[in-house]
Amino acid sequence: MKVITLSHGSGGEETQKLIESVFLKHLSNEILAKMEDASVVNFEGQLAFTTDSFVVSPYRFKGGDIGKLAVAGTVNDLAVMGARPKYMSCSFILEEGFPVEELELILGSMASELQRAGMKLITADTKVVPRGSADGIFINASGIGEVICPGISAHNLKEGDVILVSGSVGDHGACILAEREGMNFDTELQSDCAQLWDLVEEVLREGVKPSAMRDPTRGGLAAVLNEWAKQSGVEIEVEEENLPVKSEVQGLCELLGFEPTHLANEGMIVFAVKEGDAERLLEILRSHPKGRSAQIIGRVVSRERSRVVLKTPYGTKRLMEPPSGELLPRIC
Amino acid sequence: MKVITLSHGSGGEETQKLIESVFLKHLSNEILAKMEDASVVNFEGQLAFTTDSFVVSPYRFKGGDIGKLAVAGTVNDLAVMGARPKYMSCSFILEEGFPVEELELILGSMASELQRAGMKLITADTKVVPRGSADGIFINASGIGEVICPGISAHNLKEGDVILVSGSVGDHGACILAEREGMNFDTELQSDCAQLWDLVEEVLREGVKPSAMRDPTRGGLAAVLNEWAKQSGVEIEVEEENLPVKSEVQGLCELLGFEPTHLANEGMIVFAVKEGDAERLLEILRSHPKGRSAQIIGRVVSRERSRVVLKTPYGTKRLMEPPSGELLPRIC
Repeated sequence: MKVITLSHGSGGEETQKLIESVFLKHLSNEILAKMEDASVVNFEGQLAFTTDSFVVSPYRFKGGDIGKLAVAGTVNDLAVMGARPKYMSCSFILEEGFPVEELELILGSMASELQRAGMKLITADTKVVPRGSADGIFINASGIGEVICPGISAHNLKEGDVILVSGSVGDHGACILAEREGMNFDTELQSDCAQLWDLVEEVLREGVKPSAMRDPTRGGLAAVLNEWAKQSGVEIEVEEENLPVKSEVQGLCELLGFEPTHLANEGMIVFAVKEGDAERLLEILRSHPKGRSAQIIGRVVSRERSRVVLKTPYGTKRLMEPPSGELLPRIC
Repeated sequence: MKVITLSHGSGGEETQKLIESVFLKHLSNEILAKMEDASVVNFEGQLAFTTDSFVVSPYRFKGGDIGKLAVAGTVNDLAVMGARPKYMSCSFILEEGFPVEELELILGSMASELQRAGMKLITADTKVVPRGSADGIFINASGIGEVICPGISAHNLKEGDVILVSGSVGDHGACILAEREGMNFDTELQSDCAQLWDLVEEVLREGVKPSAMRDPTRGGLAAVLNEWAKQSGVEIEVEEENLPVKSEVQGLCELLGFEPTHLANEGMIVFAVKEGDAERLLEILRSHPKGRSAQIIGRVVSRERSRVVLKTPYGTKRLMEPPSGELLPRIC
């Protein structure tokens, strides 16, 4: 079995063989191995449910691959709702001719990330489409989490709330951009792709309850802040000089005409938190390996207008618009 | 907005506009409308979790479309585990250039099916890939159900159990085959695509507890029975003359060289049930609009060998092999 063929997707003998000798080899556990149409587990409490399809191109990049991204992205969507990741589903769309060796590397990444997250893959699916009907591999992941800290919401921002980021802005988008432009051979630039429940759990355990959290993926920081401004009906002011942006990311953006705040992260969280908790949160984040570059970047200044304002180092102000246009397709 | 463009997938203004003016128009409810990274609901008890990606081609066919199929397929995967459908996630992969009008028709189908199922779509995602990187539209659906009748499993078949089908064999596969071959203009053949929780609920309410249930999608009845034989370690004997196969399906199979038992259904359930419950189950099924063609088709005859044997009307026996080879790609 060197490449994926249409027969692997037809539900017969070859499908069984692919599942047993490739998928279960990497991902099996006592629930998945039962191979039922749906898996059954006990659950009690507040349940968080999320889904994302991953179509990133290239499917392997500095700092990760589509498999790691699928798990980390799912963990992070649960984490920002204050939910501990518990169960995951996974569905693969494979193009006829996709190398099985590549698939195994991707499944290996998923397995390590799942283990790290303490999350169980309990239901899965694979489809194969003819050559030319998909581009290599697409992965859908849906996640179920147990809400530990209820009430975190994009609708919760209040005047006076402070805005923080847990790390530098735009790393994943810049990495993919560089890979795509063939510019990633001589740079240290890599995706920040990482699961962040451990970071969020630490924040909650220390007694800080954020008003809102979000991981700024497609559309970047600018999209998250504009959505928050709109959903909570507030004006957010960001200090441009406090935005942590790596010099490689800044350089690439200047070269290719992008804004770092429009580029995706896959291992960073934006927080809105009550003013009195801001310094404490900054301290917690900075003392965690995944939050060393954390910064306070702005605050909610008014309940009059839903907009995001960027204050430049020269004291002038301009709107931080939500991104528009094509940006980068297939970033995640 | 006439067709999907890459900007609809970039997470910025156009993405928001597509979500609000197209997706939420058809699918909104109070939970989805919150637009959080994950949705939060209360849950208590045994939870069933399933996932499937739908890549069917053509995406509209006699009796349904990819949207109806996605909801019905999810409902059915939960139903066969004895679970009432509760929540669904949905993730779309759209090809640049896909007509928005077509998307709206598909979302309309989903909305009707969701309402019929009493299931809530609570989390969703949309990706857009460049022209040529996918074929039109792919939909992933994951479902969460509440287990009403625990312990139904493909591992549960016992010697003496009777095998029933709730309807005729191979209708969906034959319909797609006919559409693909351009042979579907002058026939009554249509997909059996339908959600079956109402049928299952009726069976359970009447006090019949099946050993196992499954909806025979890819790989058809032959795949299900062979998986059951293997997972439960039993021999199953099927009476060929009792298999309900529509004459149009039989005709198409003879013309194109397919076995009806290898073709998918999307609105039929295979049951294994204790001998004493078989006649009662048949009666319940036949008195339900979705089970009028129900039949007893065979039984578990031995615990010696994991295999499926087909008894012909002439009294001879042959193995009902699991399907192998390419069969029909993109059937669901």
